[in-house]
Amino acid sequence: MGFKEELARQANMVDEALNEYLPKAGSYPPLIHEAMRYSVFAGGKRLRPALVLAGARAVGGDEKSVLQAACAIELLHTYSLVHDDLPAMDNDDFRRGNPTNHKVYGEAMAVLAGDALLTLAFGLLAGVSQTGSFGADRVVRVIAEVAEAAGTAGLIGGQVVDMQSTGKSIDKQTLEYIHVHKTGALYRASVRTGAILAGAAPEQLYHLTVYAENLGLAFQIVDDILDIAGDEQKLGKPIGSDTKNQKATYPALHGLAAARSIARQAAEQANGALASFGAEADFLRGLVCFVINREY
Amino acid sequence: MGFKEELARQANMVDEALNEYLPKAGSYPPLIHEAMRYSVFAGGKRLRPALVLAGARAVGGDEKSVLQAACAIELLHTYSLVHDDLPAMDNDDFRRGNPTNHKVYGEAMAVLAGDALLTLAFGLLAGVSQTGSFGADRVVRVIAEVAEAAGTAGLIGGQVVDMQSTGKSIDKQTLEYIHVHKTGALYRASVRTGAILAGAAPEQLYHLTVYAENLGLAFQIVDDILDIAGDEQKLGKPIGSDTKNQKATYPALHGLAAARSIARQAAEQANGALASFGAEADFLRGLVCFVINREY
Repeated sequence: MGFKEELARQANMVDEALNEYLPKAGSYPPLIHEAMRYSVFAGGKRLRPALVLAGARAVGGDEKSVLQAACAIELLHTYSLVHDDLPAMDNDDFRRGNPTNHKVYGEAMAVLAGDALLTLAFGLLAGVSQTGSFGADRVVRVIAEVAEAAGTAGLIGGQVVDMQSTGKSIDKQTLEYIHVHKTGALYRASVRTGAILAGAAPEQLYHLTVYAENLGLAFQIVDDILDIAGDEQKLGKPIGSDTKNQKATYPALHGLAAARSIARQAAEQANGALASFGAEADFLRGLVCFVINREY
Repeated sequence: MGFKEELARQANMVDEALNEYLPKAGSYPPLIHEAMRYSVFAGGKRLRPALVLAGARAVGGDEKSVLQAACAIELLHTYSLVHDDLPAMDNDDFRRGNPTNHKVYGEAMAVLAGDALLTLAFGLLAGVSQTGSFGADRVVRVIAEVAEAAGTAGLIGGQVVDMQSTGKSIDKQTLEYIHVHKTGALYRASVRTGAILAGAAPEQLYHLTVYAENLGLAFQIVDDILDIAGDEQKLGKPIGSDTKNQKATYPALHGLAAARSIARQAAEQANGALASFGAEADFLRGLVCFVINREY
């Protein structure tokens, strides 16, 4: 199976599981469940859950046993998008070609839907010990790591600095802080979640962590580049929004050519970190290619 | 030690621990940590953490071992207040006599501070297995219960229905749904968190659950009554806001005298549920008295 077919297979599996784990759209109170489902099923690439599954497989684990954890990470990612899009934050009307959550359900419901997705993410993680075959100690360790990656030392910290930097000229260190925290932290936690649950040895975990950090950086730089040089049709959103919103980006700070080169370097680092792995890490290698060459 | 001194002792202990667990105000990025601390230290009564501690003591456990979990519940409660106060939600300018989070730090930061408090709550819960002497299986069970209590089957569900009912005439069942979910669910989860971590037997857990559900109901009805008949100075907020905002309340739906009587009945049920406990549950009994007779 080629990489794209494999990614699609996993995305389908994740989507089916998400449909199972999310409260039914009609269950009381209905509107919040509809709002949650709206953003979860708005066409995400499911890269983070794929990283959870691949993290488990890379250390000899079974992907089915970490599927629930993979869904939890995707819910957490979706929550962050819903809240980032809010009028008080990035004030975005469209995402992946569709109106954002608050444009459809109103601001209050979007805040609550985000809260509910974040809460459900931790609930699903706690439930992993029932569906997986691993001990509660691994589950607790994963919850602690995910909470750290999602908190002010990770995702939220990155969003705070991003917001505070908008419209200001910032240095390269601040830009790196934003990217490492806004994107990198959850990529890192995704692969570690799968690997820890599947019983990774410390050395395996170390290499997978280096891999994920570099993959996250490459992903984010390509994101910045696509906002300048991408195809609106394929992206599902207008390009140039970073420039319009005076967002700090790699191309803005380093120039387009240098940004491309930094992304390629990060991709090489990511692949290099997989040197001690065999065919069981081939999907992770394919993911590097995909992230670097993506057009959406 | 009298009840009020005992409650104050516990609140002090909780405050010191919260100060320890929250990121320092100056740590990067500073504003979010300041915003989190602002609302956590805005004069809460610390009733939910007291319930966690008392839940442990009632089944022969040690309060120190559940202190971190008690703090987690208080952070979760604080997050819900910060988000409920937002302009898109209840649009409240004051809480406990102080400007609300978004009035001080702006809307974006208030959303993120709430998100960060919720996230940190789960991080602290996951860390309990290191500080307490109990196994990870109990910790995982508690996280699952807290996530359910905080989600759309609990706290968030209650807030959704509350918002949707504002300005409309609702029936008694809907009002009960709001109170059971908005207040009851977290009271219930608080006492159960302490009891489960401390190794409660199923029967003990059952009685403590009935206790907490009734205590939560009594608390909420008294809250409604204070909004009509309370003292603004003692409450730290203007009275009559429920009426002004056309909020459904027990006094509005049942009349003031009947509301008082329902609160008293709930208090009796709460005390009745403690019949099989000895002096180790005296604080829980005192809490019923406090909740029924409070003026703030």
